[in-house]
Amino acid sequence: MNEADLIGTIERLLPAAPPDVLAGIGDDAAVVRIGDRLVLLSTDMLVEGVDFDRSTITARDLGYRAIAVNLSDIAAMGGSPRYCLVALGMPRDPDPAWFVELVSGMVEAAREHAVAIVGGDLSRAETVVLSVTATGESVPGGVVLRSGAKPGDRLVVTGRLGAAAGGLRLLAAGPREAARARSAGWGRDLLDAQCRPAARVAEGQVLARAGATAMIDVSDGLARDLGRVCAASAVGAIVRLDRLPLAPGLQDLLRLTGDDPLDLALHGGEDLELLATLPAAAVEPAAATLAERFGTPLTDIGEMRADPDARIVATSQDGAERPLAPAGWDHFGT
Amino acid sequence: MNEADLIGTIERLLPAAPPDVLAGIGDDAAVVRIGDRLVLLSTDMLVEGVDFDRSTITARDLGYRAIAVNLSDIAAMGGSPRYCLVALGMPRDPDPAWFVELVSGMVEAAREHAVAIVGGDLSRAETVVLSVTATGESVPGGVVLRSGAKPGDRLVVTGRLGAAAGGLRLLAAGPREAARARSAGWGRDLLDAQCRPAARVAEGQVLARAGATAMIDVSDGLARDLGRVCAASAVGAIVRLDRLPLAPGLQDLLRLTGDDPLDLALHGGEDLELLATLPAAAVEPAAATLAERFGTPLTDIGEMRADPDARIVATSQDGAERPLAPAGWDHFGT
Repeated sequence: MNEADLIGTIERLLPAAPPDVLAGIGDDAAVVRIGDRLVLLSTDMLVEGVDFDRSTITARDLGYRAIAVNLSDIAAMGGSPRYCLVALGMPRDPDPAWFVELVSGMVEAAREHAVAIVGGDLSRAETVVLSVTATGESVPGGVVLRSGAKPGDRLVVTGRLGAAAGGLRLLAAGPREAARARSAGWGRDLLDAQCRPAARVAEGQVLARAGATAMIDVSDGLARDLGRVCAASAVGAIVRLDRLPLAPGLQDLLRLTGDDPLDLALHGGEDLELLATLPAAAVEPAAATLAERFGTPLTDIGEMRADPDARIVATSQDGAERPLAPAGWDHFGT
Repeated sequence: MNEADLIGTIERLLPAAPPDVLAGIGDDAAVVRIGDRLVLLSTDMLVEGVDFDRSTITARDLGYRAIAVNLSDIAAMGGSPRYCLVALGMPRDPDPAWFVELVSGMVEAAREHAVAIVGGDLSRAETVVLSVTATGESVPGGVVLRSGAKPGDRLVVTGRLGAAAGGLRLLAAGPREAARARSAGWGRDLLDAQCRPAARVAEGQVLARAGATAMIDVSDGLARDLGRVCAASAVGAIVRLDRLPLAPGLQDLLRLTGDDPLDLALHGGEDLELLATLPAAAVEPAAATLAERFGTPLTDIGEMRADPDARIVATSQDGAERPLAPAGWDHFGT
């Protein structure tokens, strides 16, 4: 059973959602109606040895990242994050300095987005497990699901791709190489994208107001996450590979480790960039707003098209087309 | 650092809560204002080898319990649970039958309380980790915090005490002993309390409407959880040991394992019974309502009294008094 099989099993076993649940399992966050508001609910679990390695990420960065990945899920709905809960499992006799740094990193990420950490739970565990839940509210512009992409919509992405996966490869190359790349400059963006990823909260709200028809954060790689949008919307997509905004440091990484930049951009996860579909006329104004207000690039990387089988096609600069399999990070894949 | 030290560290590092947070860390659930509603948020993490043992709890019971312990936190605020999110870490190649049973147990517990499971996250982990978040709403009667107990209030508890801890001791005695005790009848209540604990949701709402001044669920043992109410309310308490509603099976367990029933009732955790403080005049009517509507006993076990040091005193039938230390389950205790 891979991750999709497991989720499919859960969906089969769950009873039909009540009418106050506007979106349940299968989007970045659930959407429920509470009183006069639409509330977004999302949870993410980070497991030591699987999602992070305590020898290569500082406690402060880990705390920051645990909050950021959850706020990113709220961002991908076009929402405004409000409250977080943190469940933390860790070995007995935790190092007090490590623990203080971990909590400080959480507080830092929460503060940047005016989010309050309002509760949690502590448990003992053999290895560190962090499970954060974020709640948010929809803002004017409305909630953007994965399922609204239409043929003819442009496909856009914020920021640069492949940076987080590049940072992970750089860490795997060893502490000395990572430190050298950081001081040479090019490694810094990659390592920051891996260890202190920015949740694109304000960007998500701009894209929602600009009329985004679908949105997702690129947490499992462009190909897999675009595949989710295509499947949820029952449309296909053409991705222009020559237009992908590759993180600049990836060229330097290629010389060090041999990792292909395009492969990292397509299949490397954890970028927390937003992938959205927009009516063509909305792209330029949205890009101008994001550049002006936040200095965040928005790149048009392709187009959605009618295809009931929701296939993705990648085109190279020479016009050659090839199918793009929705491969990427799968916790239970082989 | 024990659990209290860790929580204290978190509280020191968190900035002051914004005004829309009516109760943050330090109660069974956080209380936040969203639009025109008061929303309750709570999370609990269950870790294999610490909080449960896969060799002694079925997947269905584990799923049921993971949801129930969270709904119990909403119950302890007098609230109505609405939505759950489930983050699940588990080894690669999970047994499909085990997984289906786990999810089915969750669905069963959620359905009993008309709660919708609206989202979650899957991660790989060496051992099974379940982190559930429950949201709820306050209902007429209002939110009951831990901090409102007043000198002169009566101290009441729902159901029977020590059953869940007794069930755990029975499981530890071995599968043959557990099966024999189950078929002899007396073991069944103990094992059910451990593996399929009932969240006292409806009871919590009745107690809130009856005017409960403070409430908590007895998840870490009566002594420790009463200590939390006393500390939060800055009052002391007298507990009448001869009035404690001991689970009937504990006398049989005593003969099998030598475990002291009173000790299990005072210091054994996971009972999910509600411990509340009430004005004296409210006790009889509340007890009558609970008995009539749900068949749930409500027992008057003592009284709150003025004591800025929030000490607990236990009295025996002969009138002898002794201090009751707030000991009980501590994930990081020695």
